[in-house]
Amino acid sequence: MQQKKEAMIIGRLPLIEAFESGTAIDKIMLQRTANGEHIGDIRRLAKQHNVPVVLVPPEKLNSLTRANHQGVVAFVALVTYMDIQEVIDFVVNKGELPLFIILDGVTDVRNIGAIARTAHCCKAQAIIIPDRGVGAMNEEAMKSSAGALSHINIIRVSSLMKAVDTLHLNGIKVFASEMTATNKVFEIDFKEPCAIVMGGEENGVYPALMKICDAQFSIPMPGDFESLNVSVATGMILYEAVKQRLR
Amino acid sequence: MQQKKEAMIIGRLPLIEAFESGTAIDKIMLQRTANGEHIGDIRRLAKQHNVPVVLVPPEKLNSLTRANHQGVVAFVALVTYMDIQEVIDFVVNKGELPLFIILDGVTDVRNIGAIARTAHCCKAQAIIIPDRGVGAMNEEAMKSSAGALSHINIIRVSSLMKAVDTLHLNGIKVFASEMTATNKVFEIDFKEPCAIVMGGEENGVYPALMKICDAQFSIPMPGDFESLNVSVATGMILYEAVKQRLR
Repeated sequence: MQQKKEAMIIGRLPLIEAFESGTAIDKIMLQRTANGEHIGDIRRLAKQHNVPVVLVPPEKLNSLTRANHQGVVAFVALVTYMDIQEVIDFVVNKGELPLFIILDGVTDVRNIGAIARTAHCCKAQAIIIPDRGVGAMNEEAMKSSAGALSHINIIRVSSLMKAVDTLHLNGIKVFASEMTATNKVFEIDFKEPCAIVMGGEENGVYPALMKICDAQFSIPMPGDFESLNVSVATGMILYEAVKQRLR
Repeated sequence: MQQKKEAMIIGRLPLIEAFESGTAIDKIMLQRTANGEHIGDIRRLAKQHNVPVVLVPPEKLNSLTRANHQGVVAFVALVTYMDIQEVIDFVVNKGELPLFIILDGVTDVRNIGAIARTAHCCKAQAIIIPDRGVGAMNEEAMKSSAGALSHINIIRVSSLMKAVDTLHLNGIKVFASEMTATNKVFEIDFKEPCAIVMGGEENGVYPALMKICDAQFSIPMPGDFESLNVSVATGMILYEAVKQRLR
């Protein structure tokens, strides 16, 4: 989907001001040859806020805007990204049992929106996404989520490995969905604080990430069809979790 | 989605020939003022094959084709529609336990595709749809189904009420998903031959149809969000059915 113009921040100082006023930035496109005033600040702020910086040729920026972009165009996120530790503290302080979804390489924005919608229905408190290799939190994702993307905590991290470490340090188990796993989803104990890793449509969960998970599970399917859609699979898993927690 | 030209049958005799050669027709657009040769035959064949006939002004047909349409344009179905009794007999003769999905007013073609994909994974044998008020079995539905629409039996009927009667006569229970039902989905016995009615995105299951169902159930959701997407809800229900049948 085309990014709408009103969701762009054009130019160096406007971007720095956006950072300072707390605007959530989805992505920065930086002209490959850009240097000089404020570029160092922009890189530092981007790093500090986990915002990916993509280096592009000037033609790319010129195609996005006719304004004087000074080698910098940024896209405003439609969601506010949260800090993982703050969300954990918030959830625990409310007396809720953490139930998080981790998306590893889910790129289809409609799937992301659909997952957010289901997660919100099931009272999962957060979705954790990496800052690269994930579909944009754009208007199509928002539409597919029926608005749920603005109700659920979205945590964007520079490393899912580090995020899992943080979850572990907080006593939250991490379970990964994996088609070939011998454990079945209903053999997993979702009654403890936990996060569920869903792999991308193409490649599933990244092997190094899989290794540090506490368990893997599969969803038993009698049919011979290749695999479930990731948003439907997430729905089945969350249903199992909700059912266990009802008891 | 725009119907592609190659999926159209243009003119009176070509349509009659298509019927005679067994081509599945999705819909017929008939010029409101059409009469004379073959029109009676077309109406009779349409009725016999449960194909909806939509009366349109000539401008509508002219916008679809520049060919001499003689007041008749028909759309070829991308799926082959099956007869309900034949499917039941086929499933039972194979020694399988019937598990059917009935879609009442599901209009979003992507949802229909997604439901077909999940149903096929879960080895549901058929999807029953009415001949009106349902999304088209078009290329977008096919794409969303990841091809599953051509593997699962699609039964198109002129009346879902009659279809439920036929299911009952064959000893197949019919359960309806209904947000406000007090029975929970996991209290339903899916180990018996059964069909599951899913209501449309807007209005749910038609009340008269609901009345003749054997039971209603809801999916317990702790979140305060209005409702699940119908394809995700179908996934959760089929997961519950699969899990029960595994035992």
